[in-house]
Amino acid sequence: MIGTMLDNLRNEKPLVHCITNYVTANICANALLAIGSSPIMADEPEDVRDITPLCSSLNINLGTLSKRTIPSMQEAVKTARLKGIPILLDPVGAGASRFRTETALSLIDNAEFSIIKGNISEIKALFAGEKNAGGVDAAQSDLTAAKDTQRVITLAKNFAKKTGAVVIITGETDIVTDGKKTYAAFNGTPMMSKVTGAGCMLGAIASAFAGANKPHLPEACLAAVCTLGVCGERAFSRLKENEGSASFAVNLIDELYNINSKILEENARYEIR
Amino acid sequence: MIGTMLDNLRNEKPLVHCITNYVTANICANALLAIGSSPIMADEPEDVRDITPLCSSLNINLGTLSKRTIPSMQEAVKTARLKGIPILLDPVGAGASRFRTETALSLIDNAEFSIIKGNISEIKALFAGEKNAGGVDAAQSDLTAAKDTQRVITLAKNFAKKTGAVVIITGETDIVTDGKKTYAAFNGTPMMSKVTGAGCMLGAIASAFAGANKPHLPEACLAAVCTLGVCGERAFSRLKENEGSASFAVNLIDELYNINSKILEENARYEIR
Amino acid sequence: MIGTMLDNLRNEKPLVHCITNYVTANICANALLAIGSSPIMADEPEDVRDITPLCSSLNINLGTLSKRTIPSMQEAVKTARLKGIPILLDPVGAGASRFRTETALSLIDNAEFSIIKGNISEIKALFAGEKNAGGVDAAQSDLTAAKDTQRVITLAKNFAKKTGAVVIITGETDIVTDGKKTYAAFNGTPMMSKVTGAGCMLGAIASAFAGANKPHLPEACLAAVCTLGVCGERAFSRLKENEGSASFAVNLIDELYNINSKILEENARYEIR
Repeated sequence: MIGTMLDNLRNEKPLVHCITNYVTANICANALLAIGSSPIMADEPEDVRDITPLCSSLNINLGTLSKRTIPSMQEAVKTARLKGIPILLDPVGAGASRFRTETALSLIDNAEFSIIKGNISEIKALFAGEKNAGGVDAAQSDLTAAKDTQRVITLAKNFAKKTGAVVIITGETDIVTDGKKTYAAFNGTPMMSKVTGAGCMLGAIASAFAGANKPHLPEACLAAVCTLGVCGERAFSRLKENEGSASFAVNLIDELYNINSKILEENARYEIR
Repeated sequence: MIGTMLDNLRNEKPLVHCITNYVTANICANALLAIGSSPIMADEPEDVRDITPLCSSLNINLGTLSKRTIPSMQEAVKTARLKGIPILLDPVGAGASRFRTETALSLIDNAEFSIIKGNISEIKALFAGEKNAGGVDAAQSDLTAAKDTQRVITLAKNFAKKTGAVVIITGETDIVTDGKKTYAAFNGTPMMSKVTGAGCMLGAIASAFAGANKPHLPEACLAAVCTLGVCGERAFSRLKENEGSASFAVNLIDELYNINSKILEENARYEIR
Repeated sequence: MIGTMLDNLRNEKPLVHCITNYVTANICANALLAIGSSPIMADEPEDVRDITPLCSSLNINLGTLSKRTIPSMQEAVKTARLKGIPILLDPVGAGASRFRTETALSLIDNAEFSIIKGNISEIKALFAGEKNAGGVDAAQSDLTAAKDTQRVITLAKNFAKKTGAVVIITGETDIVTDGKKTYAAFNGTPMMSKVTGAGCMLGAIASAFAGANKPHLPEACLAAVCTLGVCGERAFSRLKENEGSASFAVNLIDELYNINSKILEENARYEIR
């Protein structure tokens, strides 16, 4: 099933509109190209008006959030909603600052998102208003709590029911749920957290999978999660002596470029919960 | 001839002022350093005032265009004109949005650019006001039309005559013309389109070549086109098993760093048309 | 001693708040992750208010300076001062434009910085108001003058006394001083100047070292300077045939990831002056 999702992405070459941050925009663009889609970054309201309707999906990422781009996000979300274009929200740093938490909540209040993806701290902050002292990474206390997968699943399902979105909570085990069907995915490597933008890349790739698989959003998200996880494992296993996090990042994009549905199906490890 | 252009660049180490986008600023800066020039990115009007006059050339790139930086572009272009500093315009996404198309046209109306570089869709949009549904890449219909190299040459020559600029249209065959002399260049690899910023890199490098070869702008542009094309071919040929687009990007900058006039002259393939 | 500084960093995993430029934000984030700290980039005043207090140190970098982010810098500096969080200023391009020089001076006037790091041209501009025609790189005349290490030390000490900050002047020999104790450090490779952001990375890493070694700021800065220098040498020595500046950049981050206190102590070359 998830192999087909990847084949669909490769065939449709979805154009993904990203309103995103300047730290990881480059690696996200390269990840989108590697997996077979096309990125277009545009964040000025006047620009967004014409760009969003051209695209197969919309990726909103709150990293380095600035007031200047919030109206663009609102405009793009509205347009995407009207046109039936899937919208993903990546609330980077929600919980760490009220500005990011409130911007995320206000976007969610004003339009139904198709997908919301975050780490455990970000999703908790949006669901229950809890603060996160871990910056853009999950807080240590949350990571400990996340060892109890069932609690993470409950949070994800409740947040999915509340928002109407497919919810992805990333962690050692990644959870994908639309509130009814729930998947737990097990691929990945801790090295992911040593490369800036690993989370942003998942948001970008999930947007591309969603754009090419609109009728099956939970499975599109699962496919994205498994694709990045499998590529991460393969990238890590190819590291040679004396190599480290930068070689891993190069390998990771290379793997996204080289993966196919057969490799993905054979290596993905997930369960329906 | 183009080997001499590269030697001049390496000797003069031109400082290139870039007003550019946050997606590809890093790889463009690294490309400029690798080829032997120095980048300086500055996009605040007050900053631009002092920076442009220090520089050998000016590179204006409309990717992730924001209203905040348009006055900087206008100011920098005016200063560069007065000081005889070559100015290159890279109208990323012209045709995809009216905001980018109109900003490009307004910049062109207000000052003579030395060089305008775009893909077929971008140049058509600026010449004839045609829309592009392909985002920042050339539209499929335009790519098909571009197989007819003669039509691309005619467009390039007409646009050069209209604007007074040396025009570069990138594609499978790259065209460089000042409206009188025309070059068609054949180096390159499709892998280029799998790395974000390959087009922006050409704009950056062409600015550096122009800064070091002011009396010979069409040939400086040809040298830039051939340099990137030759380096692309060599970067591709060095890819090992399991490597992909990120390794290619690393190889490409490495090749820009290592190329010399002999390698360039021996491998460049172009014709006068 | 400097080995202990690195061990402290690895144990404390300091969160570093960066208000920085869009050219080198990505590689700085990756350098911070590789060395064992966590980056958080935030530059909107409302965001900064909540982010700075979460962090172990604050890194202010003036590359691609925009008026939009100056109030964030002021706010973050004020907060960090109140909370005793070390603040590093990297006045990229000071001397090249009045806008950057004056912004740097105004920040310094309004709050005591813990660390100010720049090349010889930048520090001269801030100390004596001298102009720099070299853009963001040191001017040629300044580089020649810098061969006289004693003159650089005198400048660094005077600037340290004037500002109350630990001053780092980078060059072939790197100088670190608090006005009383002075260190001269000799590691490094000219290849550093072929990668955009080598200087910014030092600012980022020195912020991380400072955050984990507050009682010993001059030694924390020396440890940062030596770490980057040693990693640069090792990255350069691992280059294979046909590789160049991009492979060097990958190797450099890999080395930051792999370095430990033993490697650092064995390879660091510095003197007390």
